[in-house]
Amino acid sequence: MANGRLAQSRIGVLGTGAVGRCLAAGFRSRGHDVMIGSRDPAKPELREWLSGEGAGIEAGTFAEAAEHGELLVLAVLGEAAEEAITAAGPDNFSGKVVIDTMNPLDFSGGFPPKLSISGEDSLGERVQRTLPDAKVVKAFNTIGNPYFVDPAFTGGEPTMLIAGDDEGAKATVRDLLADFGWSDTVDIGGIEGSRELEAICIAWVKIGGARGAWDHGFKLLVG
Amino acid sequence: MANGRLAQSRIGVLGTGAVGRCLAAGFRSRGHDVMIGSRDPAKPELREWLSGEGAGIEAGTFAEAAEHGELLVLAVLGEAAEEAITAAGPDNFSGKVVIDTMNPLDFSGGFPPKLSISGEDSLGERVQRTLPDAKVVKAFNTIGNPYFVDPAFTGGEPTMLIAGDDEGAKATVRDLLADFGWSDTVDIGGIEGSRELEAICIAWVKIGGARGAWDHGFKLLVG
Repeated sequence: MANGRLAQSRIGVLGTGAVGRCLAAGFRSRGHDVMIGSRDPAKPELREWLSGEGAGIEAGTFAEAAEHGELLVLAVLGEAAEEAITAAGPDNFSGKVVIDTMNPLDFSGGFPPKLSISGEDSLGERVQRTLPDAKVVKAFNTIGNPYFVDPAFTGGEPTMLIAGDDEGAKATVRDLLADFGWSDTVDIGGIEGSRELEAICIAWVKIGGARGAWDHGFKLLVG
Repeated sequence: MANGRLAQSRIGVLGTGAVGRCLAAGFRSRGHDVMIGSRDPAKPELREWLSGEGAGIEAGTFAEAAEHGELLVLAVLGEAAEEAITAAGPDNFSGKVVIDTMNPLDFSGGFPPKLSISGEDSLGERVQRTLPDAKVVKAFNTIGNPYFVDPAFTGGEPTMLIAGDDEGAKATVRDLLADFGWSDTVDIGGIEGSRELEAICIAWVKIGGARGAWDHGFKLLVG
């Protein structure tokens, strides 16, 4: 436990891409007991990461990671969310705080992507409907993964926008964000706020495409 | 002409609510020749404003203001956009830069509002489709009207996000934003970026509701 703010917890991270790895390493750096879940936990590139940057993190199947975690993180591609949840076993999410970091990006028309779920729906809402007994909190989806832990830009610190239906779950996520170095977390309301947060991801991606660089993030100015 | 950056232009602002008045006064303060358009240009509250804060601004019908302006601003409520354009006469928009400041807010379910146009569409795109010969630029829709001119927050200056299909029109809008005191304007791409910008408005409104205050705005941090 790095700074005493949060008790050591068992964390399950589903997804071994850059987002999953960054968050798994972030939780591990704060002293938590982390298992990262993969469709294929024996794959060589994962094993290599676990013996380097991912040292101290266990790997397992989606179901093993979901069972392991008291708090779970969904970090697969948006299009793989449903399959990952099915593989993990919906019962393993029951009663738990579930951080949804995903964006439903549709690259079928090339760059920039558009949202594959839009209108009066969002991926965050779908995840919550699929897992009615879980406490889903959308977070980490409007910033690049190099900034997940100890975020800093030349012009200041960014704002993490979150949304979710359960106030207690959002308080937990706020605490772990503080533990990760986020001084400013702003709650935009219920899980339907995922509509806005996923749209903000598209804006972030378009700006990155125009800049040809990805070292940017949003800050909420106040007063 | 306040600072020599932009030649004096004829500006037509459609809409006499807070957004239209702030922008009309802003253009007037920079030396432009401004007409504000209303469904009822004789209404007492407009006449009162014209003799005070709005001094030096003319008022006319939507059609008169649209005919007057070399550059036009759409600043009616989103739900009134179609009617205002029809009243103004679509031909009066032809070939002109048209700044769309509007948000398609649906308050029928109470607060917070949701978008009345969403999914793979937006009000900005509808305006551009309705006015194919106009050069529509979405701007001013993600910030409160007190910040339209000389924007400043305790934590720094906000970022104006814009979108539109015509590069020349966006350059014009960038110049007038600079003239208004915006040091940071970020172009997120074609007019379909209105989907993101209108969603960002919803996030801005939700944050305002939670804060019980409206002195907030977004800044893009870079590097």
